[in-house]
Amino acid sequence: MADNQWASAISSVAANEIRVRGYRLDELMGRVSFGDAVYLVLRGELPGRETGRLVEALLVASIDHGVTPPSTLAVRNAATTGAPLNACLAAGALAVNRHHGGAVEDCMKLLARGAARVASGDSPAAAATALIMEEKAAGRRLPGFGHRLHTDDPRSRRLLALAGEAGASAAHVAVAEAVAAQLAAGGKPLPLNVDGAIAAVLADLGFAPGLANGFFILARTAGWIAHVSEELEREKPMRTIDQRAAVYDGLAPRTLLAR
Amino acid sequence: MADNQWASAISSVAANEIRVRGYRLDELMGRVSFGDAVYLVLRGELPGRETGRLVEALLVASIDHGVTPPSTLAVRNAATTGAPLNACLAAGALAVNRHHGGAVEDCMKLLARGAARVASGDSPAAAATALIMEEKAAGRRLPGFGHRLHTDDPRSRRLLALAGEAGASAAHVAVAEAVAAQLAAGGKPLPLNVDGAIAAVLADLGFAPGLANGFFILARTAGWIAHVSEELEREKPMRTIDQRAAVYDGLAPRTLLAR
Amino acid sequence: MADNQWASAISSVAANEIRVRGYRLDELMGRVSFGDAVYLVLRGELPGRETGRLVEALLVASIDHGVTPPSTLAVRNAATTGAPLNACLAAGALAVNRHHGGAVEDCMKLLARGAARVASGDSPAAAATALIMEEKAAGRRLPGFGHRLHTDDPRSRRLLALAGEAGASAAHVAVAEAVAAQLAAGGKPLPLNVDGAIAAVLADLGFAPGLANGFFILARTAGWIAHVSEELEREKPMRTIDQRAAVYDGLAPRTLLAR
Amino acid sequence: MADNQWASAISSVAANEIRVRGYRLDELMGRVSFGDAVYLVLRGELPGRETGRLVEALLVASIDHGVTPPSTLAVRNAATTGAPLNACLAAGALAVNRHHGGAVEDCMKLLARGAARVASGDSPAAAATALIMEEKAAGRRLPGFGHRLHTDDPRSRRLLALAGEAGASAAHVAVAEAVAAQLAAGGKPLPLNVDGAIAAVLADLGFAPGLANGFFILARTAGWIAHVSEELEREKPMRTIDQRAAVYDGLAPRTLLAR
Repeated sequence: MADNQWASAISSVAANEIRVRGYRLDELMGRVSFGDAVYLVLRGELPGRETGRLVEALLVASIDHGVTPPSTLAVRNAATTGAPLNACLAAGALAVNRHHGGAVEDCMKLLARGAARVASGDSPAAAATALIMEEKAAGRRLPGFGHRLHTDDPRSRRLLALAGEAGASAAHVAVAEAVAAQLAAGGKPLPLNVDGAIAAVLADLGFAPGLANGFFILARTAGWIAHVSEELEREKPMRTIDQRAAVYDGLAPRTLLAR
Repeated sequence: MADNQWASAISSVAANEIRVRGYRLDELMGRVSFGDAVYLVLRGELPGRETGRLVEALLVASIDHGVTPPSTLAVRNAATTGAPLNACLAAGALAVNRHHGGAVEDCMKLLARGAARVASGDSPAAAATALIMEEKAAGRRLPGFGHRLHTDDPRSRRLLALAGEAGASAAHVAVAEAVAAQLAAGGKPLPLNVDGAIAAVLADLGFAPGLANGFFILARTAGWIAHVSEELEREKPMRTIDQRAAVYDGLAPRTLLAR
Repeated sequence: MADNQWASAISSVAANEIRVRGYRLDELMGRVSFGDAVYLVLRGELPGRETGRLVEALLVASIDHGVTPPSTLAVRNAATTGAPLNACLAAGALAVNRHHGGAVEDCMKLLARGAARVASGDSPAAAATALIMEEKAAGRRLPGFGHRLHTDDPRSRRLLALAGEAGASAAHVAVAEAVAAQLAAGGKPLPLNVDGAIAAVLADLGFAPGLANGFFILARTAGWIAHVSEELEREKPMRTIDQRAAVYDGLAPRTLLAR
Repeated sequence: MADNQWASAISSVAANEIRVRGYRLDELMGRVSFGDAVYLVLRGELPGRETGRLVEALLVASIDHGVTPPSTLAVRNAATTGAPLNACLAAGALAVNRHHGGAVEDCMKLLARGAARVASGDSPAAAATALIMEEKAAGRRLPGFGHRLHTDDPRSRRLLALAGEAGASAAHVAVAEAVAAQLAAGGKPLPLNVDGAIAAVLADLGFAPGLANGFFILARTAGWIAHVSEELEREKPMRTIDQRAAVYDGLAPRTLLAR
């Protein structure tokens, strides 16, 4: 045995046989969703049907948010200098940090404190009260609550509904909802934003806070590819990109029900 | 109107209403797969059911390939220095280039030349013969054919089968299969590898070659997150990572049929 | 011997003895300039005194150019999201591409064609005429000539003067000057810009075109660090950075002569 | 005034006049060293002659350290996949983190605590004793002290000598030396390594700890360019890079005195 031997439990690769967490990749293809496969590669087991659908919904929720997020600006800014696609995507990932995307991780840590209280016998409401007071005393803002634009984020609402349907909601979701309710009752409407909803659901699914940014980067990579593609098709190189001067000229509102 | 106004057709964002290509994101969540949403954000329309399933299979096919790919090594190497997750993923994306991941793009361009011949009246077999001769004359290797390890890549086989079931196979797949058949008949078994199969399917789905690396980076990001997570959990910081000293110690082979 | 043995000729590292290109690093420290050391690590030999001074001037010329370059915007954009310093600098490097910084490399290749003509007996003027006609026929712009803002870039003028003093000017500089002269005489004043001057000098110093972006990134990294530092000190996180709304509020003009 | 106006004090750019911190760039070129210019862009004033020479020595000290540092491996690993030079350098920067390069920043913070004690009347020796006890009590290793390979790092020795000659040594250097002396006297020889020496000198020069990694990345970028260049010239694409299988085959030891 080499003295520097090390081991990985993620995939095994042999001639004509690639397995992820024990399953042949070609068997998984076409039989499980990408959300199932993401859960599998990260957790080691395939999720139940409803959980896999929830993971896909989490990814769909984060796929794009127009041209204003700083990471999307970073991607377009790289593209306009002539960067290859992979460098544009890397530039996007590098712009997902504490202040942008980081609220999911911070909110997961906050809710974990609340869930620990619930595990010790507190009600979600009591845990929420404690969290609000602790954060106020420390002079910190509550990560995952409030949004400059969305006062009632439809993505949050939908995600929590799907988590409920999937039977995946537990202490973290309960504490998150209790915090939002108490803030609203206290005259400070700081609704659960999409970062907060994703945080609550990821935490109840058992994901570690340190992976939160990864989900966002994974999903948003699809949006970033679309922005690079559009930038190269529609704009001249080396332009000064002013987000505030951007308008939407895409398809008119439509609904799935009409399909 | 500002003189530097510009437009994007991807997403519209208004208070409490985020739409991608016209659809409300919250309506899409839980109703379409992530593969559907990827197709939507890139192409402007939702795919048919079978096409969406094919896109998900494409993503599942690329989700991981063990510890030896240079991009995965780049990710682990960044992680062992203490880089945050987003920087590790950026390092991975930066290692997806001409020699690693680039075969998909090159193969799409090659097959496009073949498909153009087919559109002009050639049979796929005649187009394949022409491509093989042209590349041989130019002293170039055929991108997407042959693999150092997999002589009959199960991912390629499965992907082409799914494309056939979805009715998505057209000239690019036909030319790719004809090239492989002629190479095998000529005593030079250079089977269609997974890059080549993905290239043929992406091309028949109408994606531009310039986006090929994006699909790979998107899918593999999930695997990279798993590798960062495992690196931090199982290894000490600042280790010298020797891929050749890696062993697999994960779950034993299993099958979906037993679920 | 290990079957995967490979060799590097750059540095040797043994206990208490680090050598770069044969010289002890501690002996170099304080005795050679950073420009000398850059030349040494890249070329294998220390430059003459005047050449080393020229390399330092090249680096000083590129150290900063205010807030408008897209790479500097990329750096500040990363910083405002909370990225650590190294990720900000990586984002800057990723924005140095074909359209921004790439003119040096392209101009070096252009001038190499001119220098080859000179080596074959053409005068610099004849070589310049040929280059201008070839590029015009191909519908290409001349990289390294013309600037949206600087009609007579003082950095170019100074760099060529220093190259002359150093005895480092040769065919590439001669061709570059001849191209500029002929463009001016033809009523199309496209003066040699700083990219073009750096290209001519780097080429006459014998550097390969593929390293050109490296010099720019190396020098500009110093400026980028200053921009990250200023961004963190003076601005709030997550701001929308509009380059066109930036003003200079630094020290008033001054001169070295008054020191 | 635009409501989003903001200001920068680093450089002013007008037609044919680029000034850094008030000085014309073309006046600086050839008259100040790159180290002087780095100090100027970061601090706002040109350093004295000896201080500028010290900054250059700091940069020279970090220019390369062979093929084993993880950031250099990251650079070569990117290069072997076919990444362009700027992406290779970005990959290098992304590998400079807490565990690699981060000791400078951590040591600057440690020494700042010691210097604060000195400012309050403690002797450097007393401050050193306090630091050692505090870190031991907290179960932390002393950043900047000890090295797996260099028991008496010649770069540290030389840097401290140059700082002394420049009159730049103050409380941080004094505390660093006192810590090393007490560790040696206590039978635990953990000599000041190059990170620690750079930390002490940067701190006594008045640089903020948050910039420490920037100096390292700036200097090492030169070495990384050399490694990319060598990788492309000497090696095949897509190789598995094993640092432990690397040998040095460059120039034999030589000395400046023989020039």
